[in-house]
Amino acid sequence: MPKEGITPRATDYSQWYLDIVRGADMADYAEVVRGCIVFKPTGYAIWEAIQSGLDQRIKATGHVNAYFPLLIPKSFLMKEAEHVQGFAPEVAEVTRAGGEELAEPYVIRPTSETIIGYFYAKWVRSWRDLPLLINQWANVMRWEMRTRPFLRTAEFLWQEGHTVHATEEDAERETLLILHEVYADFVEREMALPVIKGLKSDKEKFAGALRSYALEAMMQDGRALQAATSHNLGQNFAQAFNITYTDQNNTVQYAWTTSWGISTRLIGALIMAHSDDEGLVLPPRLAPTQVVVVPIYKNEAERSAVLAAVERITAGWQGHLRFKVDDRDNLTPGFKFNEWELKGIPLRIEVGPKDVQKDAVAVARRDMPGKAGKQIVPQAGLTERLQALLDEIQQQLYDRALQFREANTHDVQDYAQLRTAVETGFARCYWDGTSEDEQRIQNELKATLRVIPLDQPETAGRCVLTGRETTRQVIFARAY
Amino acid sequence: MPKEGITPRATDYSQWYLDIVRGADMADYAEVVRGCIVFKPTGYAIWEAIQSGLDQRIKATGHVNAYFPLLIPKSFLMKEAEHVQGFAPEVAEVTRAGGEELAEPYVIRPTSETIIGYFYAKWVRSWRDLPLLINQWANVMRWEMRTRPFLRTAEFLWQEGHTVHATEEDAERETLLILHEVYADFVEREMALPVIKGLKSDKEKFAGALRSYALEAMMQDGRALQAATSHNLGQNFAQAFNITYTDQNNTVQYAWTTSWGISTRLIGALIMAHSDDEGLVLPPRLAPTQVVVVPIYKNEAERSAVLAAVERITAGWQGHLRFKVDDRDNLTPGFKFNEWELKGIPLRIEVGPKDVQKDAVAVARRDMPGKAGKQIVPQAGLTERLQALLDEIQQQLYDRALQFREANTHDVQDYAQLRTAVETGFARCYWDGTSEDEQRIQNELKATLRVIPLDQPETAGRCVLTGRETTRQVIFARAY
Repeated sequence: MPKEGITPRATDYSQWYLDIVRGADMADYAEVVRGCIVFKPTGYAIWEAIQSGLDQRIKATGHVNAYFPLLIPKSFLMKEAEHVQGFAPEVAEVTRAGGEELAEPYVIRPTSETIIGYFYAKWVRSWRDLPLLINQWANVMRWEMRTRPFLRTAEFLWQEGHTVHATEEDAERETLLILHEVYADFVEREMALPVIKGLKSDKEKFAGALRSYALEAMMQDGRALQAATSHNLGQNFAQAFNITYTDQNNTVQYAWTTSWGISTRLIGALIMAHSDDEGLVLPPRLAPTQVVVVPIYKNEAERSAVLAAVERITAGWQGHLRFKVDDRDNLTPGFKFNEWELKGIPLRIEVGPKDVQKDAVAVARRDMPGKAGKQIVPQAGLTERLQALLDEIQQQLYDRALQFREANTHDVQDYAQLRTAVETGFARCYWDGTSEDEQRIQNELKATLRVIPLDQPETAGRCVLTGRETTRQVIFARAY
Repeated sequence: MPKEGITPRATDYSQWYLDIVRGADMADYAEVVRGCIVFKPTGYAIWEAIQSGLDQRIKATGHVNAYFPLLIPKSFLMKEAEHVQGFAPEVAEVTRAGGEELAEPYVIRPTSETIIGYFYAKWVRSWRDLPLLINQWANVMRWEMRTRPFLRTAEFLWQEGHTVHATEEDAERETLLILHEVYADFVEREMALPVIKGLKSDKEKFAGALRSYALEAMMQDGRALQAATSHNLGQNFAQAFNITYTDQNNTVQYAWTTSWGISTRLIGALIMAHSDDEGLVLPPRLAPTQVVVVPIYKNEAERSAVLAAVERITAGWQGHLRFKVDDRDNLTPGFKFNEWELKGIPLRIEVGPKDVQKDAVAVARRDMPGKAGKQIVPQAGLTERLQALLDEIQQQLYDRALQFREANTHDVQDYAQLRTAVETGFARCYWDGTSEDEQRIQNELKATLRVIPLDQPETAGRCVLTGRETTRQVIFARAY
């Protein structure tokens, strides 16, 4: 039986997504500010969990945080030829301030390579100043035509790392370190979301990058979502902003820079990867609340016995489990079950008068709705049992997403197969085409070259389009 | 002997402040973005420590975080009469986006009462929805004419809490809870900065508030700095944005709202309250690095013995002390001492070959420069000794700032005394004047009514200006 207010995935996947966002109370449409949303507390708490897990990894790999201005002189955008093409059409411009027209407009940062490049040119002098390893948590703005909560909004939140290195090898090592140790490690371990690590094609790379790496994940409708990007910017921005250093031989050299980011669209990925027709499903490691306790009683005597038991049971949880006791008096247990299902809390504990008598509790797993996920568990050893269950759920969500991706990744040999494959999932194929060929596929099949996986086969094959032999395998898919 | 690059406080306090900001590498001037700064890693790490201490207290008092749009329709600002007067002259306006002129300009939020009020009107329906307790961490922009790093910048970072309540008493209780339990507790305990808690006069209150409360602190030049504000907004914004709820008798009522904020100007307060002519001084509880270890050696044999000792000594510190080992090979100990003094690290540990032989280390306190703050400490029990020293420093900084404030707070009886007192510190006096009287004092003495302390005397006295008898005592001072 479908849940009230949630359109089943099979009926309308897009509407299902919007129903989850609304049903779990994650965001509100800021219709008065075009294309923007309000991140409501339930949605923002997930972003805080993402920030915490990423910030830890960013610092553990030697980076520090800083903060650069929101506004960028418009002329800065123009300094890197590809960059201006990519971003100029979608910026918001400040033309008036303090009651006066500005001589030169500012743009609200769509990304900060240019303004940060300007400062790095001042700060970097010698090889001793390198590497410079800085990250920023910030809001950015891109005036997108079509928006969807979390996935694509005019204003969004992200972190953007910007680093400077002495050599191309150092920059490349940094770009890959971030991809593997920071991004893939976080997304796979904390979000339970398996990813394909790889390189972007020239057509799909960041505007101004030498090489862009990305993580691609599969959503439950078979579409791809780019979960993170890490760019080796080569010397493009160093040349545009004159970031130079004096090397050990006293020669002035252009530096090499990188940039990398993860944004609030990850919240969208999280929803679309794991949730079901009952509501949001959160991986336990990321869930702001892992366990919700619902006391069940019919009269005052039962109430006090049950609440006393709940207090005793949860006494030892502090510091071990992130939990909440839902002791609201004016709501039925059924209403509460529904609300916490919608909000994706991984485990629900029910404590009723019979459970109190038997020194037990009922435990319901959010990832297995219905009877299959329900069990009676003794109160003795409950904390450890719940921790083990949370680990099991985390693993289960990852495994399920991986199986789904594998089942919906099709090895295709020719264009007809490619056409069919991208209707339902990823098409894996050999590829030796050009950017124009990619554009043709995009026009005809609405699919793009998502990623050239770092894991490549040992044998060669024939390009799905040109028939030429090549060793390069790629993933085509429709994408968010 | 004054430190190179630091103008002594006694010579030029303003220049001293700028020298500390630059010497400790806390900020850079974003001269290409008017009135903005870059928060460099050393400065931003202090903001992260402030965020962490405040966020913990904000959540512990029942609030949750959310995020609202950066842009506000310009017409929203106009809806509350006092608010528009206060903020309209200093907003930055977005008039063009995505290549097109906008029909209605947006302003970049100078504060978010209006845009948040708009959403709260949608979200609040019944008394059951109240209180609504939300906080936001965000950047805001006010096009100020004169700027100074951290203290006054066009863009700054802050948290702004916005709450909705059913009754005036509830709103008042919230306003004072934040003032006492969140702000004063944080600023006094973590920042070691004694504050006077009190009410703002009508002239000085927030544009649109019923009552504004604030914390005022004294800087080392005797000027006041407003460290935090907490506003009871009455029903002003509820009426402007139609925030209503149905009460338990099924009657529709206007709600009562509050707002409260602390910003990156606290970093400026921190510098000006504790630092000296040697550089920044950081209170240990807030310091991102509490202890820096400088190994001292002349040759390779000494080097390996000293570094082995350092590794052994610091092995147990993880999780107990926030520390850094400065093992940079290309710099002299003297250079390192200077750098960490400038950056305000509370304790410096020196480990040389003689210390290794004696199973001891040399410890230097940043709050007591020179010989007075140096001591030889045995390696046995060092962790506990350092923790005790850090506590002692924290208390010492607080006591010193409190003594300074008391020594520079003058009880004044008449206008001549008031004139003299505000030259060097706070003037405490009875007050029964009007907003016009305050304006006259501001024009003549460059001093404002900072705060009407919550702690009031039991006896009456005569108003410093009008001579009328009153029981109300206030603080006048020049302010940042």
